[in-house]
This record gives sequence, structure tokens and C-alpha cells, in this order.
Amino acid sequence: MDLSQLRQQIDTIDRQIVNLYEERMDVSRQVAEYKIETGKKVFDKQREQEKIAGVKALTHNDFNSHGVEELFEQIMSMSRKLQYQLLAAHGSEGRLPFIGVEELETDCARVVYQGAEGSYSQAAMHRFFGENVNAFHVETFRDAMSAIDEGSADFAVLPIENSTAGIVNEIYDLLVEFENYIVGEQVIPIEHCLLALPGTKMEEIKRVYSHPQSLMQSARYLAEHDWQQISMQNNAFAALKVAKEKDKTQAAIASEYAGETYGLEILKKGINDSDSNSTRFIIVTNQKIFRKNANKISLCLEIPHESGSLYHILSHFIYNNLNMTKIESRPIPDRNWEYRFFIDFEGNLADSAVKNALRGLREEARSMKILGNY
Amino acid sequence: MDLSQLRQQIDTIDRQIVNLYEERMDVSRQVAEYKIETGKKVFDKQREQEKIAGVKALTHNDFNSHGVEELFEQIMSMSRKLQYQLLAAHGSEGRLPFIGVEELETDCARVVYQGAEGSYSQAAMHRFFGENVNAFHVETFRDAMSAIDEGSADFAVLPIENSTAGIVNEIYDLLVEFENYIVGEQVIPIEHCLLALPGTKMEEIKRVYSHPQSLMQSARYLAEHDWQQISMQNNAFAALKVAKEKDKTQAAIASEYAGETYGLEILKKGINDSDSNSTRFIIVTNQKIFRKNANKISLCLEIPHESGSLYHILSHFIYNNLNMTKIESRPIPDRNWEYRFFIDFEGNLADSAVKNALRGLREEARSMKILGNY
Repeated sequence: MDLSQLRQQIDTIDRQIVNLYEERMDVSRQVAEYKIETGKKVFDKQREQEKIAGVKALTHNDFNSHGVEELFEQIMSMSRKLQYQLLAAHGSEGRLPFIGVEELETDCARVVYQGAEGSYSQAAMHRFFGENVNAFHVETFRDAMSAIDEGSADFAVLPIENSTAGIVNEIYDLLVEFENYIVGEQVIPIEHCLLALPGTKMEEIKRVYSHPQSLMQSARYLAEHDWQQISMQNNAFAALKVAKEKDKTQAAIASEYAGETYGLEILKKGINDSDSNSTRFIIVTNQKIFRKNANKISLCLEIPHESGSLYHILSHFIYNNLNMTKIESRPIPDRNWEYRFFIDFEGNLADSAVKNALRGLREEARSMKILGNY
Repeated sequence: MDLSQLRQQIDTIDRQIVNLYEERMDVSRQVAEYKIETGKKVFDKQREQEKIAGVKALTHNDFNSHGVEELFEQIMSMSRKLQYQLLAAHGSEGRLPFIGVEELETDCARVVYQGAEGSYSQAAMHRFFGENVNAFHVETFRDAMSAIDEGSADFAVLPIENSTAGIVNEIYDLLVEFENYIVGEQVIPIEHCLLALPGTKMEEIKRVYSHPQSLMQSARYLAEHDWQQISMQNNAFAALKVAKEKDKTQAAIASEYAGETYGLEILKKGINDSDSNSTRFIIVTNQKIFRKNANKISLCLEIPHESGSLYHILSHFIYNNLNMTKIESRPIPDRNWEYRFFIDFEGNLADSAVKNALRGLREEARSMKILGNY
């Protein structure tokens, strides 16, 4: 037989598969109607496992057995998605642990940020909440998380990722530890400046102070100079130290705004390696809420070590047509080479495809935490 | 109709789908035989696109149109995988750009590592190549990459990931930049020690020197002390500095081995936060080779910005049953919020499932680089 004949055979088979697929979805619709009437739940793990075992038993070799397993996991996920859609249309999809709100209550809100006056965090806060926000600052990221946890602040503003240096690991760890949730984000362009006491000459400088992230972001510029690089908790603290100690051998790397705040001179502007450097800040609160027009969900997943496999987890995004925009693996503290996965994807917690995916993920992951929808 | 009747209908449909699936795979086998005889290639992008458009046109609503698209992408991937398997069995699968070798040629090899005598990198090198290895060290990771690129060394030993602190970003960036490849890995347990001149008292210490990674790994211990933390390129350099400058206000964080090498006293052992802290080192060379029993592949992918979607990319792993063990996204330098993905998965470049996946990935990614199979 030649190729065109074989392809005709395939086309005939495919037409039949499409017909059967549509028939199956039609019966699924009827199952959903039955479940709506009787109040039964959509996901029946035992039935799905029996179904997979059943179709595998019908095949005649290992290759097809595996293929059919994957195929029916996809088909059943599609059926479930259809059923969740119908349940949603009937308003009988069950309650979410997160509460949808029209807008965040930012009037009279008290906001905490880490660092000091003149920091990028403060700039991000002003952009998001306005210049007249009722704010205070704390020393560490953990202090900021604790402040909203205890209720001494309503919102916290924290840096989560820089376009050059990558994620801020500690924030990810704190999001897992605390029962606080992301409700917004704000991107701020970053332009690092070399700041020193007014009148300082470049050749006087011996030491430069900044946050390790900012030192990394300015690595190329710093490599041209033989300065000692000293880690500080915050760029603004570094600027404050240089201003207070009045020692011309000391310089800081921080924003122009920090320079103005502490009366320092800008010796060099834009010393970051990348011209298009920006930092993404998240807005965190202690309530499980999301804006009804939110379109980004952040999750943390831990996956069982036995299987060692990500791929079943990720299939829930694929089969539900959810667009992942970011995925990070972070080692779990004190467990050697076990990972936690942080995933961002597009969607709203009220969408049926999102619910279908979250249901599947919760079944298969060792643990899952929704970090926020914003 | 009640639930059991509906389920019987579904079972009947599913039996037919399984039969058609097996028939389709049988015709695919015949297509492969035809292609082997005539020397045609397996992947025909145009035919696949026409096929998807054709089956979508057969459906009667948007939900089914999308479902059928996903379904046939999976079915065609399975068909391709079967065809690659048969081509492999006939020895006509085409040449790989990587050359399979039985063992690495490590006799008389010249090896480069970053840092100084007494570093963890040196310890990893001794573990992998033996104590009598012909070695030299350089100042930066880039210098080590350049040394094998130019041929002044045959292999480089570089730290890629720590079980507590996560990945070493710079190494990932260098793996993309240089035409060097990973051919092995070595895990080394990490136990940081506080090192100082013999006879130093804890209360004399004012400054502590170490690599930023080691400072981060010892964050909990350092938080109990009010010492200035100074970044160095390498832990061993920090130990050397403390030994040379003979200043009792200075201490270093480095390995016990570094302490012995430079005659320093161990003031405190195991100051790292995590008890089970270890670092994974990679062995890199300038040839595109892989050991025939290698079972881990590292890839770097850039995904088109337009679609913004990871999910089609990841489907190639899922449909080929490849177990991803790690996935990282790193911002691409100078392109705001565009990411490069680093993926580790189990497999060998000679496997047909691996070839099938790589073929699909290469078609869909903006760029793909195989970093090594080891």
C-alpha cells in the first residue's frame, strides 16, 4: 500500500474518533444534568481509576496500553471540564475558600513596607496606593509579613522578582509559611545610582554598601573598580549609613530617590547591567480575597517524592487550556533535593477551567497552596 | 436515563475509541515501514497542521473543536513516537549532533575549577576525577568556561545548585553563552565552619568574609551575631584572606578542609541553616559527547513571546512519557519579563521518545539548546 492509501485509512479512522468524541461529550452533558439534579459531585476518583484500568485491558500491547492511558486521562479531564462548566451555568458549583470582591478596600488602609524612606518598595507602594497612603516601614520581609498577619497593617508591599536577577527567594518561602495572600502587583523600573557624600571623588571610594541583589545587578560596573562590596539589608539603609557616617571612602548603591532623601550626590546614574531593569512588587493581605476581574493565579505545589514526576501535575494545566506564565522550582528546606514548585498562570478562581485544574492538582500534589489571584 | 445507563453508553463509546486507536497505530506502523523504504522523514509539519484543521472542522461546537485539537495533537505525537521507534529498530534514525561514548577520557585529563585550594569545588573535583588529577584553578566561573573553550583544560568543575539556596544563576547563563556541554555531575555535602586565626575569641570578631551563597546558607547563625558580612568571590579566598592578614577581628565561612589548608582554627562547625545541605557540581567539556548509559538531559528553551504559553512546549514531555525532574525560569538579560526555561529530564539522547520530544520542542521553541546528557 502506498502513502496516500495509508493516509486515507487514517482519515477514515480519525473521522470516527471525532464522532465518538462528540458523542461522549454529549453523554457527559447528560451526566452533568443528572449530577445537578441529584447533587452528586463531579470528580469520582474511583470511577476514573477503574475506567483507566478498563481501557488499558482492552489493548494488545504495552505501547498502546500506555497511549490509551494518556488518551483517556485527557478525555476524562475534558468531560470533567464540561461538567464543571454546566454546574457553573446552573449556579451549583459550590463555594470557594476565596471571596470575590469588586475592588480592594484601600481607603484608610494602613500599609507596611520593608526598608526605609527612599527605597524602591516605598516607590512601589506610592504608585499602587497613592502618595497620601498611611504607611510605616519595618526592618525585614518577615516583619512585614508578621505585621499583616497580626493585623497591625492591612497590606504589605514586597519585592518578588527582578527582571535581571530573578526571584527573591525569601519572599517565596514566606508566602508558604504565612497565611497571607497576594491581591495585587506593581512593576517599578529600577535605575541604580552610585551615591556618596557631596564632593566625593571617585578615587576616594574604598567600600560600597548595598543589598546583595543590587550588587549582583551592578556586577559589570563594580568589576571595573576595586571596591570592597558590603551586604546591607536594604539599599536605603546603605544610603542612610553613608549619609550619617560622613566618610568619603564609603559609597552606596541605591535609587536617585534615596539620594535625594538623604542628601547624597549622584556620582554615576544607571550603573545596573541591564538597561531595562525593573522589579515586580506584590501587594499582600491577610484575607482570602480576590478581585473579580483578577487574571493571574499564583500557586505553590509540593509533589510526592516517590513518583518524582512533574508531568502528571502539569497535564492539569494543559488539558484545561490554562496558560502558565512562570514556573520555578525551589529546594524544600531540610529536605535534600526535594522541590517545591511555584507556578503563575492566567485565570480567575471563578472560572470553571481553573476549578477543574485546581481540583485535579489538589488530588495529585502532596500539598497545594493558592498564594493569590490578582 | 439514570447514571448507570449513561455510564454504559460511555463504556460502549470508549471500547470503540480504543479499537480505533489501535487500528490507527497499526496504520502508523505501516507508514513507518513505507518511510523506511523510501527514506522519507517522520515529521511532516504541513500534514499535521492540515490534519488538525480537518478534525476541528468536523466538530459541532467550540468546546469540542478545542478538545479534538488537543486530542489529535496527542494522537499524532504517539504516532510519531511509534515511527521513531521503528526507525531506530531499523538503524535508520539519522545522526545525532552528540556523539555517544562508553566512558569519559579522564586519564591524563587536565581539569580546571574556580576558586582556590581548599574550596568545595576542589573537593568535588577530587571525588569525580581522583586525588591525582592534573588540575589548576582560576578566579571566576567565566575563566573556567573560557579555559575549556580554548582547550587549555579538558574539563571544568562548576557548582550549579545548592539544596538550600537553589541554583547558581551565573552558571546557567554561562552554559547558554558558551559552546560547552555537561558530561557529568557530582554531589558534595556542605558543612560550613566559622574559621579564624588560632586563638581568636568569638567576641573579637567584627567582620566575616565568605561567598554570598554561603552567607545566605548561614543566615540563621549570622543573625545571632552583629558582624559585618563581606562578599568574596569564593569561600577559600575568604579563608586565605583571614590567614594572610592575621587580624583577629576577621573570620571566614568555609569548609573544614579550607581551614586545614590555611592553618585556621574552627570556632564553630556546621553553621549552615540546613542539616542536610549539599551542592551539586557539574563536569563540563568542549565536546558534544554523552556517555551511552547517561540518564539525565538538561535543556535551555526560549519560548516565543507572542503566544506567551508554556503549555504546548511541556506537552512534548507529557506525550512522550518523559519524566521532568526540574524546571527553572530565568529572565532573559535585557529583555523585560521574557523568560528562558531550564529543564532537566530523565532519558538518553539515543532513546526514540527523547528524539521525538526534542524534534517537537525544536519546532515550537524560539530556540533550544541541549546543555548535556550525563
